[in-house]
Amino acid sequence: MEVENLSLKEFCEKVAERKPTPGGGAVGSVVGALACALAEMVANFTRKKKEYENVEPEMERIVEAMEEAREKLFSLAEKDMKAFERVMEAYKKSGEELQSALKEAASVPMDVIRVMKDLGHDLEKLAEFGNKNLASDTLNAMDLCRAVFLVEKVNVLVNLKSIKDEKFKNEMLEELEEQEKQIEGSYRRVREYLEGIVWSSK
Amino acid sequence: MEVENLSLKEFCEKVAERKPTPGGGAVGSVVGALACALAEMVANFTRKKKEYENVEPEMERIVEAMEEAREKLFSLAEKDMKAFERVMEAYKKSGEELQSALKEAASVPMDVIRVMKDLGHDLEKLAEFGNKNLASDTLNAMDLCRAVFLVEKVNVLVNLKSIKDEKFKNEMLEELEEQEKQIEGSYRRVREYLEGIVWSSK
Repeated sequence: MEVENLSLKEFCEKVAERKPTPGGGAVGSVVGALACALAEMVANFTRKKKEYENVEPEMERIVEAMEEAREKLFSLAEKDMKAFERVMEAYKKSGEELQSALKEAASVPMDVIRVMKDLGHDLEKLAEFGNKNLASDTLNAMDLCRAVFLVEKVNVLVNLKSIKDEKFKNEMLEELEEQEKQIEGSYRRVREYLEGIVWSSK
Repeated sequence: MEVENLSLKEFCEKVAERKPTPGGGAVGSVVGALACALAEMVANFTRKKKEYENVEPEMERIVEAMEEAREKLFSLAEKDMKAFERVMEAYKKSGEELQSALKEAASVPMDVIRVMKDLGHDLEKLAEFGNKNLASDTLNAMDLCRAVFLVEKVNVLVNLKSIKDEKFKNEMLEELEEQEKQIEGSYRRVREYLEGIVWSSK
């Protein structure tokens, strides 16, 4: 299934039906792509403006990075479905095949999280240097980015639960903690930059 | 533009381009529809199962409610775009037309928030009575539901900023506070019900 070519309605219907995939992990990945699209809009509205001239190369970089990230996230949504289907298949087979399938199923949401960490860093740039008329869109992208992290974190943990390789498990838990720190840091800083603009005369 | 018929890729491209709509409010509404689809999947996997027989009518109700909510959210995404375009038009016209356009632009994200409040309540039901094998999907839907609230809250506030009608403003701020209390309550309870299941043997 080519996720990105499904209509919004079709994708929702596929999520809603009584089939295990696409589940929360794939949905999170798609929401991540939407957050990247919002960030890209902010960068596009900052480009080619006299008052933001000095950040033109940075904005250009962000536009390209967001397009790449969107593609990556759609492919991770597909990978997530395949990984979960493999886990379900593996429950009928050997323990080894199951362990390897679970590792893959924990790694895909971690990949989504890595993309969200980068998105968080770029949102900090947009919050600090980007077009202030789009402050609310930047905040919106950051809220979605953080939610996607939380969604994928659950999907990492739920797979780690049945993984026996303690080394793999501990490495994943450590990375999860580090990524959370990064994303929470971006969240805090983006809000600090922009909240005053959105709420000032409330 | 019929939002629900756009492919995921097309919708992302429309968000990303240098045009004001669709912006964060419309994206939030679409993410809300995805959260409803996840909730619907959980309800669908709870139905027609002997051990969940006693909650069959409630699950049936939730499936129908989620389908309605999805349609509503797609139409609110379109309304959000129109409302924002009207605000931009109105900036060139009289103060009165602008005030009325801003009220509409603040009301649409509030409508999305109302749908999220109901979704939160249904997610509590799913967390308490739904199929426990889908605990992670229920948690994922709740994280997205809460993020959509935060996204739409920013979009209410950003419009309220320029609204002069103090009565309207205060009513909206009061409702925002009440809805936030409801959604945070759902968030807390859903996590209480399910966290132990997902993290227990971490």
